[in-house]
Parts: sequence; C-alpha cells; structure tokens
Amino acid sequence: MKNYKIVVSYDGSKYNGWQKQGNTNNTMQERFENVLSRMCAHPVEIHASGRTDAGVHAIAQTANFKCDTKLSPCEIKAYLNKYLPEDILVKSCETADDRFHARLNAVSKTYEYLIAVDKPDVFVRKYVWVSENKPDVEIMRHAAKKLLGTHDFKGFSTGKTKKSTVRTINWIDISENDGIIAIKINGSGFLYNMVRIISGTLYDIGVGKLEETVIDKIFETKIRENAGQTLPPQGLKLVEVFY
Amino acid sequence: MKNYKIVVSYDGSKYNGWQKQGNTNNTMQERFENVLSRMCAHPVEIHASGRTDAGVHAIAQTANFKCDTKLSPCEIKAYLNKYLPEDILVKSCETADDRFHARLNAVSKTYEYLIAVDKPDVFVRKYVWVSENKPDVEIMRHAAKKLLGTHDFKGFSTGKTKKSTVRTINWIDISENDGIIAIKINGSGFLYNMVRIISGTLYDIGVGKLEETVIDKIFETKIRENAGQTLPPQGLKLVEVFY
Repeated sequence: MKNYKIVVSYDGSKYNGWQKQGNTNNTMQERFENVLSRMCAHPVEIHASGRTDAGVHAIAQTANFKCDTKLSPCEIKAYLNKYLPEDILVKSCETADDRFHARLNAVSKTYEYLIAVDKPDVFVRKYVWVSENKPDVEIMRHAAKKLLGTHDFKGFSTGKTKKSTVRTINWIDISENDGIIAIKINGSGFLYNMVRIISGTLYDIGVGKLEETVIDKIFETKIRENAGQTLPPQGLKLVEVFY
Repeated sequence: MKNYKIVVSYDGSKYNGWQKQGNTNNTMQERFENVLSRMCAHPVEIHASGRTDAGVHAIAQTANFKCDTKLSPCEIKAYLNKYLPEDILVKSCETADDRFHARLNAVSKTYEYLIAVDKPDVFVRKYVWVSENKPDVEIMRHAAKKLLGTHDFKGFSTGKTKKSTVRTINWIDISENDGIIAIKINGSGFLYNMVRIISGTLYDIGVGKLEETVIDKIFETKIRENAGQTLPPQGLKLVEVFY
C-alpha cells in the first residue's frame, strides 16, 4: 500500500468537525473515508494534522492515507473532487514516504481568527465573527506577547486530557483591514478550543473587559474560567500546516 | 427633501433581483424602500443604476433616493446597515445634487462573469458558474473584439422592448487565474440578460460549439436564438457604475 499526502480546503459550516467520534455524524473524516474506500475497494483510514471543531474552516488542512490503487496522485485528486461535496476541495495529492503521518509529523500550524468590527463584506460574511464592540488592536498586540513561547495552555482549553497540555506559540500577528481584525497564530500544536479561547481572551482584553494580567493568572491557575470567551467557530480557519 | 447617493453591495442568491415588478416579491428595491420609509416616516422611492436579475450579485451598485431626515449621511448608512439583512451592505452614503439620478446619469457600467473550469475554491463557490468544459481563452479574447463598439444588441437579449436596443461596449477583458476565467465587460448600458448571453456566446465559441462568425450573424439577424446559452445568474456581479 502506498502512502498519500493531500492538502484540503473546506467550508466547515455544515459539518460536525473533521474527526469522527462516537455517535457524531457528518464529519469530514467520514466523507473522505467513504469516498476513498469506494475508490480503493478496501477500507481506508485518513489522518489529518489535527481535528478542526464543528463549524471551523480550513484553507489548507493536511492529511494522509494508505491505500492500494492504480490511480495516479493526479487521478486520485480528480476522483476525490468529483465525489466529495462542493464545500470540500482537494488542492493537491502526492505520494509520501511510508512513515509520513499528517498529525505526528506536523511541526507547526497556523490558524486565523477573523473578527468583523463593522457589518462585513457580503461575500465573506459567513467566515467572520461579527463583534458588537471594536477592540483596541494595539492593546491586543501588547497582550499577545505574553502568550509567546512555551507554556502550559491548560487554562486556554476546554475538555479534559491526561496528555501534556504544554504547547509552544511561535508567533501571533494581529492586523486590521477594512473593518476586519485578523488574529494569526502559529504554534507547535493547539488544544481543544485553544485558538478560539486565546482569540476571545485577546478580544476581551482589547475591549477592556479583562486586564492584560489575566494571561499570567491563567498560566498560573490553569483554570479555564479565568480566560475570556470562546469565540464562535465560523470565524476560525486552519491556514497551513508545516512539516 | 434632500437627494442621497448610496453605493451598495449584495449577495443576490436569495433575491428576485433588484427591481420590484408586479407580483414579484423579495427584491432588493422593496427591502430598501421599507427600511427608508420607516427611517423617514414617509414613502421613499429608490432608483438603482439598473436592475440586476434574480440571483445576480453586486460589488458596487449605485442608487439614489430623496428623503426628509435629520440623520447625517453617515447615520443613514449605519441605519440601513442595521436594518437591512446581512446579505446587503451599504458601503457609502453621501448627499447628491438634486438632479442626480442613478440610472439616467450613469455613463457606463462594469460587469464581471466568473467561470470555474475546475472545482472552485470552497469560499467563492457560490459566486461562480462551474463549467463542464475548459474554453480556449485566446479564442474567446479574439471573438470578444467583434463585440466592441456601438451595435444593436437585440439578438443578445431576451424580453421585448420598444426602446432602442443599441448599446456601446467600451472594453472586454478576459483573464484566467487559478482555474477561474473572468469576463469583465464595460459598456454604456446592458439589455435584459445581455451580459449572461454575451458570456455564454463567448464560452460556446471558446469550447468550439459556435464559430466566431456567429457574432456577425447575431448583429445582422438580431435573433436571440442564434446566440449562445444564457449562463446562470450566480456567476455574474455588477462591479462598478461610472458617472
């Protein structure tokens, strides 16, 4: 069986996230595995760089799967694009080293959260969160510096895990254009809801609801309740995965 | 009463076009007139640069209306954006000369038709037409030259009119990027369905279904049946109106 690496874009609006889990229906993973298993005439398992939550989008998610097919990578891409719905697009497909694993080998990922501080452009309105208040971008940028580096981000996540909650954030870039504030975050990996809680905490600091020092307190106490709101999923996009 | 000029963007997917007519419900014009009449506490009539058909979008439609209000142009814009749905956005509002009329004073308009020759980007998929075949852009560009200048475009329209069907096309630009062919057309004015029939005729010529000489024949005979298909509305956007 050959190992294939694909880069995928999706509009997550109608899905319960990437990963199939328990009784959850309508996940990207199921859609891919159904089409791939039919294509190869054997069961296929697909591994993404990480799950994206319900309603979260991707510009370039990366995944890999092993399968037995006579189709070329280019033909696999065409097959997937033909049978996957219009809100999922395979941008590239190539053969990968046998040992390549999209999640385990990921070095870092970039996410982007978009906040519209005014009524947004009609053509992007479904991919932003429309805020009631206008945060101060300079205050957000200043606070964001406290998040950089390696920390235990347990207080910036929901859900329980026995695994390590230590992650490294490499950079955060906050820009503002045409009434849209974009928070771009690159890090080694992200816990459940971590980008949305970080974005919500920076937003709450930017509008004066929280003080910048709250970030130190969250790192110290590791208590999620100390952090800001979890911003809604539609404003979040997985932008790129680095290997 | 003061005269106001507004520039408006909309996602036309859910509307029966700009103009209210007979029993047609759910038009942009009605939406605007309802909100404006409530704002001014008197009936308000709005005039756009031209109707856009059901399902057609606008990046920058221009309209004017006369009304009696103490609100500033900036406040009018905010009021409209608050009460109009999320698929309609007022980009600007300013006072205009009493004699300014968005339709009568329009000098030219630019429309853009987008054809996806491959499965499109998930975030723009609702604003393109996905074609089955890939037309030859060079052949389309060559044929487009025959359309330039002043002609009777009756054969490139549907519907009957007793008014003149002579129009001037100033320029046509056809570009191709990332699997999307964009046909941009600037002209003095456009008849009913004219941009969609011109785009469909150029497409049909580009895929070899029609010969370039069909354009001369349509001008000569003025018979719509000689022209190519009317492409679907979702690929069309009114880009700009010039005064």
